[in-house]
Amino acid sequence: MKAAVLYGPRDIRVESFEEPELRPGMVLLRSRLVGICGSDQHYYEHGYCAAFVPDRPFVLGHEVMAEVAAVADDVDTVRVGQRVAVNPARSCGFCEDCKTGRGNLCRKTIMLGSASTTPPTNGGLAEFVVVRADQCHALPDDMDERVGAMMEPFAVALHAAKRAGTVSGRRVLVTGAGTIGLLAAMTVRAYGAAPVAISDLVAERRAKAEELGIDAVLDPAAADFAERSRKLSGEGFDVVLEASGASPALRSAFDLVRPGGTIVQIGTLGTEDIPLPANKLMNKEINLVGSMRYGNVFEEAIRLVAAGRVDLRPLINAVFPLEAAGKAFEFAADKARSFKVQIQI
Amino acid sequence: MKAAVLYGPRDIRVESFEEPELRPGMVLLRSRLVGICGSDQHYYEHGYCAAFVPDRPFVLGHEVMAEVAAVADDVDTVRVGQRVAVNPARSCGFCEDCKTGRGNLCRKTIMLGSASTTPPTNGGLAEFVVVRADQCHALPDDMDERVGAMMEPFAVALHAAKRAGTVSGRRVLVTGAGTIGLLAAMTVRAYGAAPVAISDLVAERRAKAEELGIDAVLDPAAADFAERSRKLSGEGFDVVLEASGASPALRSAFDLVRPGGTIVQIGTLGTEDIPLPANKLMNKEINLVGSMRYGNVFEEAIRLVAAGRVDLRPLINAVFPLEAAGKAFEFAADKARSFKVQIQI
Amino acid sequence: MKAAVLYGPRDIRVESFEEPELRPGMVLLRSRLVGICGSDQHYYEHGYCAAFVPDRPFVLGHEVMAEVAAVADDVDTVRVGQRVAVNPARSCGFCEDCKTGRGNLCRKTIMLGSASTTPPTNGGLAEFVVVRADQCHALPDDMDERVGAMMEPFAVALHAAKRAGTVSGRRVLVTGAGTIGLLAAMTVRAYGAAPVAISDLVAERRAKAEELGIDAVLDPAAADFAERSRKLSGEGFDVVLEASGASPALRSAFDLVRPGGTIVQIGTLGTEDIPLPANKLMNKEINLVGSMRYGNVFEEAIRLVAAGRVDLRPLINAVFPLEAAGKAFEFAADKARSFKVQIQI
Amino acid sequence: MKAAVLYGPRDIRVESFEEPELRPGMVLLRSRLVGICGSDQHYYEHGYCAAFVPDRPFVLGHEVMAEVAAVADDVDTVRVGQRVAVNPARSCGFCEDCKTGRGNLCRKTIMLGSASTTPPTNGGLAEFVVVRADQCHALPDDMDERVGAMMEPFAVALHAAKRAGTVSGRRVLVTGAGTIGLLAAMTVRAYGAAPVAISDLVAERRAKAEELGIDAVLDPAAADFAERSRKLSGEGFDVVLEASGASPALRSAFDLVRPGGTIVQIGTLGTEDIPLPANKLMNKEINLVGSMRYGNVFEEAIRLVAAGRVDLRPLINAVFPLEAAGKAFEFAADKARSFKVQIQI
Repeated sequence: MKAAVLYGPRDIRVESFEEPELRPGMVLLRSRLVGICGSDQHYYEHGYCAAFVPDRPFVLGHEVMAEVAAVADDVDTVRVGQRVAVNPARSCGFCEDCKTGRGNLCRKTIMLGSASTTPPTNGGLAEFVVVRADQCHALPDDMDERVGAMMEPFAVALHAAKRAGTVSGRRVLVTGAGTIGLLAAMTVRAYGAAPVAISDLVAERRAKAEELGIDAVLDPAAADFAERSRKLSGEGFDVVLEASGASPALRSAFDLVRPGGTIVQIGTLGTEDIPLPANKLMNKEINLVGSMRYGNVFEEAIRLVAAGRVDLRPLINAVFPLEAAGKAFEFAADKARSFKVQIQI
Repeated sequence: MKAAVLYGPRDIRVESFEEPELRPGMVLLRSRLVGICGSDQHYYEHGYCAAFVPDRPFVLGHEVMAEVAAVADDVDTVRVGQRVAVNPARSCGFCEDCKTGRGNLCRKTIMLGSASTTPPTNGGLAEFVVVRADQCHALPDDMDERVGAMMEPFAVALHAAKRAGTVSGRRVLVTGAGTIGLLAAMTVRAYGAAPVAISDLVAERRAKAEELGIDAVLDPAAADFAERSRKLSGEGFDVVLEASGASPALRSAFDLVRPGGTIVQIGTLGTEDIPLPANKLMNKEINLVGSMRYGNVFEEAIRLVAAGRVDLRPLINAVFPLEAAGKAFEFAADKARSFKVQIQI
Repeated sequence: MKAAVLYGPRDIRVESFEEPELRPGMVLLRSRLVGICGSDQHYYEHGYCAAFVPDRPFVLGHEVMAEVAAVADDVDTVRVGQRVAVNPARSCGFCEDCKTGRGNLCRKTIMLGSASTTPPTNGGLAEFVVVRADQCHALPDDMDERVGAMMEPFAVALHAAKRAGTVSGRRVLVTGAGTIGLLAAMTVRAYGAAPVAISDLVAERRAKAEELGIDAVLDPAAADFAERSRKLSGEGFDVVLEASGASPALRSAFDLVRPGGTIVQIGTLGTEDIPLPANKLMNKEINLVGSMRYGNVFEEAIRLVAAGRVDLRPLINAVFPLEAAGKAFEFAADKARSFKVQIQI
Repeated sequence: MKAAVLYGPRDIRVESFEEPELRPGMVLLRSRLVGICGSDQHYYEHGYCAAFVPDRPFVLGHEVMAEVAAVADDVDTVRVGQRVAVNPARSCGFCEDCKTGRGNLCRKTIMLGSASTTPPTNGGLAEFVVVRADQCHALPDDMDERVGAMMEPFAVALHAAKRAGTVSGRRVLVTGAGTIGLLAAMTVRAYGAAPVAISDLVAERRAKAEELGIDAVLDPAAADFAERSRKLSGEGFDVVLEASGASPALRSAFDLVRPGGTIVQIGTLGTEDIPLPANKLMNKEINLVGSMRYGNVFEEAIRLVAAGRVDLRPLINAVFPLEAAGKAFEFAADKARSFKVQIQI
């Protein structure tokens, strides 16, 4: 089969690759559309991502929309021909984390298109990819396949909204209007947060937030930022979703959040310690919680989109053919202007 | 001052009435718009409501939008001239229920426009009414005052949605498309339930539900009811909000709800015992929870409407002047066609 | 191997039986001690249990303490020689219920020693039994093996306590002082419920509750029952755990529970509808929740016993050898006097 | 009346003081026993505490056990002659925080024996003190009055345990074995945490923890600390309660807590920012929550002690007469050896 194989920094080659094997419990998927995520981008630019260094060339792609090509004999929950969104994280199903509904913390998780395993686990930027049956989530017939490939990043936002406890009817601020931040703002709005504000230093991102109809779009560097925040939130936002990964944003959240409120850290931060006002955490009785990937939210993600609660299409900037995979990555590198770039197989 | 005074069944007289006195902690309100609720209707038709029998003529009206006419010297949270929605339930603030955030269960609650106290507590169908400062919730300048008078019934629906635990992203069925059922459906949709279905035996109510754009409108007597329910919910609805007060609806909820799901009883049921499949409750591990009035949800109610998450106007059928109070009650008696009738003071 | 095989009502034969086969992911256990549960007793007395009618002779026993005899090649979480308590419910691990931490609702669950599958799944009353690796929970070296075989009924009580929401510091009543009721009372006491009361009509059971040191032991037929309840609970118990399976007990719970409180149904009720005061459910804003078996609580059960938070030994009345399996069942039939009868293999 | 009046650093004078006035809703208490808290100690040593600088001499004491001497005419929940534990925090009862059950965050709180108001609010180190009726919590007749005066610090520990979410059955580590840390350890053990570990650098405190029977007592400076922690907690503690106020303890909690676990900050930290590994917060999906004083937990505190779930007496080192108030403060200054010093009035 044909695949986009990553050989090293900025070295991605569309070439012939060994087809994956169908084992018991598994499903063979014909990959259709694959989105590029920040971590893919990092692999592309540097050849590795965080602590994950591939020991051989491998296939990226974990935001996958696909069609079921074949299923193993023991699989009865997925049918050949179905269009599916793929949950790229295959947790074990049997450890304490999995059994308590926190499969996203499972230490045995195998991640599609990732070098977190050795050898790396090949992803969806190929004609075929194999996943476990429960990783497949059927899409309604009338759902745009580009939208189907948005379920994975949408799942990140959904999980973060759940980590906030309750957002319905609450005053919510999202810091950072990149793809995940915008998705988070759309999600909490769909969950009934009111009002929903979003902040970003970059004008292009704020413009996208305006286009999406977020209730209030803020520039943290503007002179009237504090005043606008206060008008929106009174004594503070009930929830702050930190999606920028910028440590000043996290620090400022301790001031912007209401006593008793919740800060959710979604954006990836560096490994350095960050100075934080822990005394405020106590005096204001703040909850500061991490949000790691997503749990079992794909079915919900599909239902929300199918019912029209969120419209994910405005985030898709461009779709490239597999042959132009490298070009797609180059395009996606402009983080101010590109929100979601997809590759069609 | 002028007031609509209830003397007995179908005997409501617009006449002169003693003006209420402003005491410490209290606020004098100029009543503007008052909605008629099912319990008001019951007082009007029978002269009493449930166990509450007035010992003298009194003034009904607990769905009140008003303007602040005067405040006691010690009040600093409300200003003269403000337009407010009124929380008619004055809980004590100091008992165990109040202190744990469940003021709706406070045994010392004093209810506006109700004979639950002796003498009865006069309500909003008068030129003036006195409430404690914390019962007043300021309305945004641009909010329609008819909508302001809808906050009380909306609060009932909001509280019920909260009693369901989480509805965001869940499959929800509301049984009963009267005013509260419709408000509940609108609320869970605003909270991100997907899909939201509503059922009612009465065609006019189903028509209103269709008009409001509820995802699916069902007739429980229709031949295809079971099949449509299954299509919408798969193995059952995550949440069923029972708003009809009809015992067959409650009983059927045990079948329609998914294992592990939640049934919320909002509709008032008679005092007779109702035969229920308690073994299903256990085998399906159902949560069956009552929902009683509302807690501290008025600020949230106002925020949700102000942010455009719900539009309450389509439920308002007619506004009558105070002088025509009796006529308003007669109009409201047609429960199939009238959803919310209001009286302007 | 030798096994106690159930042929029909009161017809249990200790005889040679085919040894179970070790497949991938599985563990071969040498059964050591097996407790007799109410459902085992029902199978023994009637040949079936509820809707589960075996199509052939099979081996009962799902309260199993065992030693690991062999493990499949792919198993790395269990070691040969370990002593384990067995979770007899093998949920699939991959459905929506399993992934959300509610494996006890998994529709694909395979239950040890049960005719819920066809053919029946053989249980622990045999020299060997095969389970999936994650069904095994290692016991500390110094734990009495009879106590190890109590983990399954203890898990039922633990799950019920969790279904109550919070019991720590709350006033709790358990109705029914059979084995599960007593375990529930011990569990909520270990969780910090204060005070803990238990009620039963049968004097022998009340005597056992006294022996276990439950704070208050009540006779619901006694003249001072209402007064004692009021003294213990003030305006009502925060939580009532209904473990008797008697419908009058469930009905009375609506009066005994505090407004805003929770009733948990643990005791198995018949399939007939039960008349219940649903209006009280609403007016008192009660939570009525079912409790079905147990989820992932075995590790916790072992930790609680190991730390001395509960002492399960006083509930064990007698231990019979496998050869005397029938006699053990006859002994266990005296429900007033026998709390837990075990069979040693 | 006689009172211990704080004039400045180490200048406390037992002298005549104006008796407080009984107003509506209030209760006049005859103070009996008052515990010395760390903040009292800070006032004594420095003349102020944190940002609270008294503008005149005032009476300390907020850990108060008292007898009701008189009640205002409108008070019906408290009776003259009752022995009570006092909740020193008088929240307003009507703000959004109070109404949602989070009165500990109420911005209008008036604190007994504190300079957080101007003028300072006089406390319990006097013959008489006045509080609002709902601040009084009746003690059982047979409860030791010294124990009654322990309810306030116990309430701090109870609140922290609640902030942890669920501790029942969980592996819990408390860092810091001062009074609050020890109370926290006793509380989570009473709530069924298993095992409960506590750590402290100071040998005397570890000795007290051993005396109290905490499951495991650790020295964070010991060579085997990491190994013992791992043995106790496997992949980490489910909950870490940080009660030392030492920033290294908070930082280490990020390593000691299990993925998905919760860290509760109880110990007062300085106002400087603390470098924290925020990336671990995200990758391990940790909850870091502040715990601020206590909410409505006094009734529960009394029930837990009355039912024998905790024994607070071993923490009381010494009781001094009012005349020796200064001496009591000097004694309490030895933080390694003194856990709770009380003053009898």
